[in-house]
Amino acid sequence: MSSELLQHINYPSDLRKLSPDQLPKLAQELRDFVINIVATKEGHLGASLGVIELTIALHYVFNTPNDLLVWDVGHQAYPHKILTGRKDIFHTNRQLNGISGFPKRSESDYDTFGVGHSSTSISAILGMAIASRLKGKKTTQHIAVIGDASIASGMAFEGLNHAGVTDTNILVVLNDNAIGIDPSVGALKEYLTKAKVGFKPKAYNIIEALQFNYFGPIDGHDLPMLLKTFEELKSIDGPKLLHVITTKGKGLKQAEENQVTYHAPGKFDASTGDLISKDNTGLPPKFQDVFGHTILELARKNPKIVGITPAMPTGSSLKYMMEEMPDRAFDVGIAEQHAVTLAAGMASQGLIPFCTIYSTFLQRAYDQVIHDVALQNLAVIFCIDRAGLVGEDGATHHGVFDIAYLNCIPNMIIAAPKDEIELRHLLHTVSLGVNNPIAIRYPRGRGHITNWKIPMQKLEIGKAYQISNGLKIAIISTGTIAHNVTQAIAAIEEKISHYHFCFIKPIDTTLVKQILNKYTTIITVEDGIIKGGFGSSIVDYANQSDSNSNIITLGVPDQFIHHGTVNELHDICGISAKKIEKTIQSLL
Amino acid sequence: MSSELLQHINYPSDLRKLSPDQLPKLAQELRDFVINIVATKEGHLGASLGVIELTIALHYVFNTPNDLLVWDVGHQAYPHKILTGRKDIFHTNRQLNGISGFPKRSESDYDTFGVGHSSTSISAILGMAIASRLKGKKTTQHIAVIGDASIASGMAFEGLNHAGVTDTNILVVLNDNAIGIDPSVGALKEYLTKAKVGFKPKAYNIIEALQFNYFGPIDGHDLPMLLKTFEELKSIDGPKLLHVITTKGKGLKQAEENQVTYHAPGKFDASTGDLISKDNTGLPPKFQDVFGHTILELARKNPKIVGITPAMPTGSSLKYMMEEMPDRAFDVGIAEQHAVTLAAGMASQGLIPFCTIYSTFLQRAYDQVIHDVALQNLAVIFCIDRAGLVGEDGATHHGVFDIAYLNCIPNMIIAAPKDEIELRHLLHTVSLGVNNPIAIRYPRGRGHITNWKIPMQKLEIGKAYQISNGLKIAIISTGTIAHNVTQAIAAIEEKISHYHFCFIKPIDTTLVKQILNKYTTIITVEDGIIKGGFGSSIVDYANQSDSNSNIITLGVPDQFIHHGTVNELHDICGISAKKIEKTIQSLL
Repeated sequence: MSSELLQHINYPSDLRKLSPDQLPKLAQELRDFVINIVATKEGHLGASLGVIELTIALHYVFNTPNDLLVWDVGHQAYPHKILTGRKDIFHTNRQLNGISGFPKRSESDYDTFGVGHSSTSISAILGMAIASRLKGKKTTQHIAVIGDASIASGMAFEGLNHAGVTDTNILVVLNDNAIGIDPSVGALKEYLTKAKVGFKPKAYNIIEALQFNYFGPIDGHDLPMLLKTFEELKSIDGPKLLHVITTKGKGLKQAEENQVTYHAPGKFDASTGDLISKDNTGLPPKFQDVFGHTILELARKNPKIVGITPAMPTGSSLKYMMEEMPDRAFDVGIAEQHAVTLAAGMASQGLIPFCTIYSTFLQRAYDQVIHDVALQNLAVIFCIDRAGLVGEDGATHHGVFDIAYLNCIPNMIIAAPKDEIELRHLLHTVSLGVNNPIAIRYPRGRGHITNWKIPMQKLEIGKAYQISNGLKIAIISTGTIAHNVTQAIAAIEEKISHYHFCFIKPIDTTLVKQILNKYTTIITVEDGIIKGGFGSSIVDYANQSDSNSNIITLGVPDQFIHHGTVNELHDICGISAKKIEKTIQSLL
Repeated sequence: MSSELLQHINYPSDLRKLSPDQLPKLAQELRDFVINIVATKEGHLGASLGVIELTIALHYVFNTPNDLLVWDVGHQAYPHKILTGRKDIFHTNRQLNGISGFPKRSESDYDTFGVGHSSTSISAILGMAIASRLKGKKTTQHIAVIGDASIASGMAFEGLNHAGVTDTNILVVLNDNAIGIDPSVGALKEYLTKAKVGFKPKAYNIIEALQFNYFGPIDGHDLPMLLKTFEELKSIDGPKLLHVITTKGKGLKQAEENQVTYHAPGKFDASTGDLISKDNTGLPPKFQDVFGHTILELARKNPKIVGITPAMPTGSSLKYMMEEMPDRAFDVGIAEQHAVTLAAGMASQGLIPFCTIYSTFLQRAYDQVIHDVALQNLAVIFCIDRAGLVGEDGATHHGVFDIAYLNCIPNMIIAAPKDEIELRHLLHTVSLGVNNPIAIRYPRGRGHITNWKIPMQKLEIGKAYQISNGLKIAIISTGTIAHNVTQAIAAIEEKISHYHFCFIKPIDTTLVKQILNKYTTIITVEDGIIKGGFGSSIVDYANQSDSNSNIITLGVPDQFIHHGTVNELHDICGISAKKIEKTIQSLL
C-alpha cells in the first residue's frame, strides 16, 4: 500500500506540517492502513472508517494534546491512535500487552479520558473545561466526539443539560451516522433523520432546546469543510455542537452496505472487503444464540413473555424474537436504566420480561435493579450476557463484577449455568414463572456442546449437584468455568470431586454443608471478581457453620484485568484449566 | 377542623360521588388534613400541598386503580394515600409498622409502582402501557406524575425518548413548581421557566422535540380546568404530556415562601405554619455540616478543591461552599451519572473533586464509579452521605449497599470515620492528595461530639486502632456504629476489646492478624448489608490465614429493611447498643 504521507507522520505535529490539500491523500492512506491491519488482526472497523476525515481535521486544526479531545465509546479511535504515536504498534491492537482497542489514559497523553462505555464524553469534557477555567487556561479547547446512538442515552442528556447553562468553552461533535452497533432508535434519532447536510430542521431541535449553539449539519467526509468549520468554531465561546453527518464503514463498499456486520467483522480480504468465511459447521453455538433461539421458542408458547435489549439486538441475539414478534421484543437504545424499569413496569402487570443486558452495562442500571425490581420483588429475568472475562475488549468490557454487586441485593436469585443445555433449561424454568427477580449469567461466545436443542426440563431453583467424585479435594464452581475445571481434573491422575452450583444465590447450603464435612481442602472457582463473589459466599457459610476446611477461592483478583484472549486472561487470573490443575496439584 | 366531605371519603369511588363544584371544598379539607397531621407527625409537606387539586382531579376523572397512576419520587403522594384507603392510618406515616412515606405496592392496589428515587415513573408507566396493549386492555389509561426536577434526569429522558416513538396511551403530567428539594437547575429548567399558564413558548420545547403531544401549561390549582383537561386527554391516543404549573407548599404561607425549609419542615404549628423551634444549643453537629463547613475551610486554602452535588445542596450542606465559591461548587441537578463523570473529568486535569452523594443515590452512578473513576484510578473523593440505615424514609433510602458494592471495585479506598472529628481529619487528609479514588461514608444526622472544630490532622490511610481492651472477645467495627458498640461495652461488667477500622479497604491486615491470633471470638459490626460487607472482608482474611476464630458478623441482614426510627431499625438488625450487648453477653 502507498503510505507516502502517512509514513512520515507519527504525531499530530507531523500532520500539521502538511498543506490542507494534501489531507485527502492522507485520508486515503490512513483508511487503507486501518483496513489492512484490521483485515488480519480483527477489531472494530466501521466506526473508524467513518471518522478518518474527522480525525485528521481535529488533530490538524486543534492543538492536541494541549487542546483536550475525548472520543465517546472509542470504537472509532483507531485513526486517532495511529496519528498519535501508535502507528507502529497498531498491529498489536487488542492483543495481550498490545495497545488497547479503546482510548486509555495510561497509553498516551492524547487519550485524555479512557472510554469503552457510551455517553461519558460530554460529562468528562465539561469537567475538563471547568478545570481549565479554574486553572486560568483561557485558550484551551475542549472537544467531545459522540455518536448519534450515544447522545441519546440518559447520561449524555444529563451532561448536555448541565453544559448548556455553563459558559464553558466546549465543542460537542455529533458524529451522526444513524447507527450505533445496531441502527439507532428513539425520538431524538427521528429528529436527526430529518436533518441533512446543509439543512437543519427548525422544529424539534433538542440540542438547541438545551441551549447549545448548533452548527451544521455538514458532511463529515468533506475535509475542506471540516477544516473551515473547526477554524471558525475555535473562536466561538460557550457550549456548542457541530452536527457532522458521516457514513459508517466509509470507503469500503461492503462495510458501508452491511454496517452491522462490519462493525467488528473479524478477518476479511483487505482488497475486496470480502469476509474470510469461517467454517462454523459442527461448532457449538454461541450462548447468545442459545438465548435468542430459546426465548423465541418459549415466547411462541407463552404470550406473557416479552424481550428487552438496550441497543444490542444483534449482540444479544434478541433480534430473532424482534423479527418475528416486533410488538413483544424491544430495542430501547442505549438506555439501560430505562430498560430495567420498563421491565419492572411490565412485570408489575403480569408479563414475563426477559431483559438481556451485558454484565458490564448492567452496572448502568444498578439502582434500577435494586430500587425498582428487587425491592418490589418483581419477577424480571435478567439475562446477563458477556459475563466473566470477555477477552480482547478489555478492562472496560469485562463482566466480572455482577456476582458481587448482585449478591448483596435481597430477593435476587443469581444463576450461572454450566453449559448451553443448562442455560436452555433455566430459561424454560423461569418462563414457567418465578417468585423473585433472577439474573442468569453466561459468557460471550461459544460453548462446547453442539447438540443443545434438546427438550427443555424444569430445574429446581437453588439446587447444586456433583459432577465428579474424589476423596481429598473438592472443587466447587459456578457457571461455564466448570469446563476448565473438568479439563483440569481430567489431567490429574487422582480423582477429584467437582460440584457445580448453577445457583449462586440462594446457595445450596445442604450440599455446602456436606462438602464442608467431607473435605478439608476446598477450591472455589468462578469467572468473576473474588471479593464478594461466589467463593466468598462459601467462605461466609463455612464461617457460620464453624467449619475448619481450608478454602481456596479462585477467580478474578482485586485488580482491573486488561485485554488479551479469554484463555490468556483466565491464565493470568489462575482460572485456566492449566492453572487450576496446578493449584490442585500443589494441594495433593 | 371541618371535614364534612372528607370524612365520607375513603376511596376514589366515594370521591366520584361528589359533584364537581364540591371539589374545591374537599381540596380545602384535604389540605387541612395533611397540614394537621404532618404538623405533629412530621414528614414531607410542601410537595403534597402542591398537588392537592391535581390528586383530586386525577382520581375523580380516571378510574383508578384500573387506570394506572404512578407518582414519581412520591414525596407528593400524601393526598393520594389519604384518598385511597389510608386516611385513618395516615397518622402512622413513616413510623415503624405504619404506612410508608412513599407509594408502595404492598400497601395498596392504588400504589401501582413503588417509588422513592426520582425519574422512574415514565419507564414504569410505559412498561405498564405496553403490558395493557399486549393483554388487550384497550381502554386502560396510564398516567405518570413527575416533577420538573425529576424530568431533567437522564433516566426520565431515556423513558421519554423511547415513549415518544411508541403508540402507547400514556399521559405524563409534568408537575412544574420550579423546585425539587432545592431549586431546579439546568437547560430544560430554563425552558420551563419561560412557560406560563396559558403560554407555551414555541422555541426550545424539548418535550415536543421528543414527539410527545404537548398540552398546557395550565394552572394546577384550578380544579375545573384540571377536570376539563383530563376529560379531554382521556380520548387522545398516543404519548402526551400535560404541563401543569403548581406552587410547592400551596395554601400554607410559610411553606410557599420558604419552599426548601418546608419540603420536610419537622413539627410546626398547624394554624400559623410557624416552625416549632427546637433548641439546638449544645447539640452535636450534623455530619452533613461537618462536611459542609470543613470542605469550605479546606477549599479556602487549596484552590484545586471543587465540590459537586447532584441536587442536594441543602441536604448535603455543600450549600455553604456554593454560596461562598459559586465557581467551584456545583449543583448539577438530579444527575448522579453526570456528577461522577464530571468529577472524573476534573480529576483528570488535577483538580481535587469532592463529589457528595447520598449512599442510596450513588447506586445510580455505579458504572461511572467503576468505569470512569476506579478503572482510571482518578482521585475523586466520594463523600457518601446518608450511609447506613436512614430511618423514616425507609427501604428506598437506606444507604446499606455501598460497602458491598464498592468493596469489589479495584483501586477504591473505602473509609467510614467513627465520629465528626475523624470525618474532619479524613477530609483534611484526602485534600492533601491521594493516589486513589476514595469513598468516605457517614450517616444522616447528628453525631455525639460537640467540640468537633479542632485543628485537622493527617490520618494514615489503611490504619486501624484499638479503642478498648479486654480478654475474651474482640469487637471490630467500622464507622459511627462504633458508638453503639461503646455503649454496649459500657453496660457489661467484663472488659471487652473494641477495634475501630476507619478503613474498610484497604483493610489493616496487620491488626486483623493480631486480633485473629489473640481472640477466639470476634464480632464484626457495621451499619450496612452483611453480604459482601466489612465483616465479610474480615471473614475472608481469616479464611486466607487459616484462622479458626469464631467470627460473628453483625449488620443488615439479607432483606430489605423498611421504615422506623434509626434506633428501632438498628434494633431489628441486631446492631443497636442493646442488641450488641445481648450478643456479647451470650458469648461470655
